[in-house]
Amino acid sequence: MKNFSIALIHYPVLNKKGDIVASSVTNFDIHDIARCARTFGLSKYFIVHPHQSQRDFAMEMISFWKEGYGREYNPDRSEAVDIIEIVKDLQEIENRYGRHKLIVTTAREREKLIDIYTLVKEAEENPEEKYLLLFGTGWGLAEEIFQLADYTLRPVIGAGDYNHLSVRSAAAIILDRIKNSVEK
Amino acid sequence: MKNFSIALIHYPVLNKKGDIVASSVTNFDIHDIARCARTFGLSKYFIVHPHQSQRDFAMEMISFWKEGYGREYNPDRSEAVDIIEIVKDLQEIENRYGRHKLIVTTAREREKLIDIYTLVKEAEENPEEKYLLLFGTGWGLAEEIFQLADYTLRPVIGAGDYNHLSVRSAAAIILDRIKNSVEK
Repeated sequence: MKNFSIALIHYPVLNKKGDIVASSVTNFDIHDIARCARTFGLSKYFIVHPHQSQRDFAMEMISFWKEGYGREYNPDRSEAVDIIEIVKDLQEIENRYGRHKLIVTTAREREKLIDIYTLVKEAEENPEEKYLLLFGTGWGLAEEIFQLADYTLRPVIGAGDYNHLSVRSAAAIILDRIKNSVEK
Repeated sequence: MKNFSIALIHYPVLNKKGDIVASSVTNFDIHDIARCARTFGLSKYFIVHPHQSQRDFAMEMISFWKEGYGREYNPDRSEAVDIIEIVKDLQEIENRYGRHKLIVTTAREREKLIDIYTLVKEAEENPEEKYLLLFGTGWGLAEEIFQLADYTLRPVIGAGDYNHLSVRSAAAIILDRIKNSVEK
């Protein structure tokens, strides 16, 4: 899964009322998703936030696990956060690492959805291509991100009408499914 | 998946040094796992802690989402925490809801592992049986829980040597895999 990376987007996302906002960086989003991304062998985990103060806060969290007491106490977490990069927007990812195919994830049904099997098959047939999975915080990604993206991934569906996974759980499930598709 | 429930065990678990300890209740463990359990249609999500003060703390967190401002702000989360029950030990679960087959989860390879497909097949052939998935906090479940259990579930394996998912991520992945096995 080395040609896959993941990005956690804090802007533009929706709030409860459907307004476009920037959400706050959350410590659990940082290390839960980092540990998943590292376990499943992804290339990078990008934390995307337009505000310098929030990027500084994320960097402070990461430094805790990378250095000093945090590293000594929990070296596994330190190893996980090594793949994190903090950026201000998707353009910065492209500037640093080149063009990625963008795959948005969503909890809602939409048009032109791609399933994981088809995505992984495409990635295997195009090993020089890089893929970036976009996850939204808050109440989900704003429409402009869907318009930017190359694909929208079919949502994870539960057993009934209730379908409100945290972004951390959704990311874990999608990375596991990608890995299992790679193996088939 | 109505004959499956999940229990998050805070004692007896291991700390970093391998000592048996009681771990603290964590807010993110409560609602991330509740939202997963609810999404995948489980029967109950038990939070297991021997200390009254920690059970009270868990109840306080849950009440926030069930009542007043929390319910109004985020009704989806309120609906998720409805399936939570707080208990002091596994015996209390048996007293309240009858005997369950116990399935421990672990990040480590062990003897006598069962895979999800086999477990789901057994559950489908025995619809009157109830199954309880046990997840450990801290550095994992103590040996006595493995001795109590009917089965140990094959661990989620990543892409390389690194395999340090959070309990929240592991629970999400295992519930998704069970649901996908039910559908096959």
